[in-house]
Amino acid sequence: MTEHTAPRRRGRPRGGTDSRERILAAAVDEFGEQGYDGSTVRSIAGRAGVDSALVHHYFGTKADLFAEAVGIPLRPDIDVPGIVAGPRDEVGERLVRYVLEAFERPEVRRRGVMLIRTALGSRVTSPLLAGFLARELIGRIAKLLAVPDAELRATLVASQIAGLIVTRYVLALGPLAAADIGDLVHRVGPTVQRYLFD
Amino acid sequence: MTEHTAPRRRGRPRGGTDSRERILAAAVDEFGEQGYDGSTVRSIAGRAGVDSALVHHYFGTKADLFAEAVGIPLRPDIDVPGIVAGPRDEVGERLVRYVLEAFERPEVRRRGVMLIRTALGSRVTSPLLAGFLARELIGRIAKLLAVPDAELRATLVASQIAGLIVTRYVLALGPLAAADIGDLVHRVGPTVQRYLFD
Repeated sequence: MTEHTAPRRRGRPRGGTDSRERILAAAVDEFGEQGYDGSTVRSIAGRAGVDSALVHHYFGTKADLFAEAVGIPLRPDIDVPGIVAGPRDEVGERLVRYVLEAFERPEVRRRGVMLIRTALGSRVTSPLLAGFLARELIGRIAKLLAVPDAELRATLVASQIAGLIVTRYVLALGPLAAADIGDLVHRVGPTVQRYLFD
Repeated sequence: MTEHTAPRRRGRPRGGTDSRERILAAAVDEFGEQGYDGSTVRSIAGRAGVDSALVHHYFGTKADLFAEAVGIPLRPDIDVPGIVAGPRDEVGERLVRYVLEAFERPEVRRRGVMLIRTALGSRVTSPLLAGFLARELIGRIAKLLAVPDAELRATLVASQIAGLIVTRYVLALGPLAAADIGDLVHRVGPTVQRYLFD
């Protein structure tokens, strides 16, 4: 029996699928315990007993790994810079439309609401969401604004978008849950626009 | 030994403090299970084994009882109508200032953050917060607006205020958590004003 497994063991230390799964499990544990900011690719690799290079090989950046670990098919770290870099007078509406259209997709809504419930529900997991928002959404928007109060402006945008998601999708407050996306983009877009540029 | 307790039992069915405590315990259970809308003074009285009149006697309205049950020394059902009824061009700033100043008080912040974590954290308790917001905040603001889309306008106000509380006090996102109240009133007030009247 051992004759069949021995050559594989000698050739490479672990099977690829096995390492990938262990890295993902380590990421879930590490993000959950240390938050987004407190976790590094190196600390996750250490936890999984692999080299950092293997984590990068399988998952790319820390943001890539986070998206995979929480299972959310939504990537503000990839999508938002393009939205903010487009025509300036429509950034507010484009951002609101992007978020709402994403949350209309059942797989984003289901997992997104679950992440928000989990992250907001406990003092331990809140830094996870806070850290991800700060680095991958607010930080990226702020960098593109290049004004002294850019961080505060971007965080105010996050406050309105977070409030919209919480009231429409988590609390499902009647009139907001029933409103169509076009109407909400029209009403909320100018708020985001004003926070960013006025 | 029983000679001492017998006369009291005959005189009145229960001590006043005992009834009050039982009503409060019943309210916590009933609000937790049925949400704010699903609970009535009658259903809470029934659960406590007392008459509805006794609930009104000790606690007043359902909103009074809710405030007592969740232990939050903040009463939008009482304060908000006055704010909205004041000079029209400053309603947005007054509402934002009211909420922020309330949450700067440690006892409001501590219990408020706890209620938000509890209410958002679970599918079961979310209707509690949603129902209270809908009836006592959004409903009261909408009634004072008297326009066809008043409910949606008031709910958008709630979305920005909820987002502000979540990002500043629950997630404690850096630039927003550090900003002073005057600056935030100046930046967020016009958003609320526009949702209400533009």
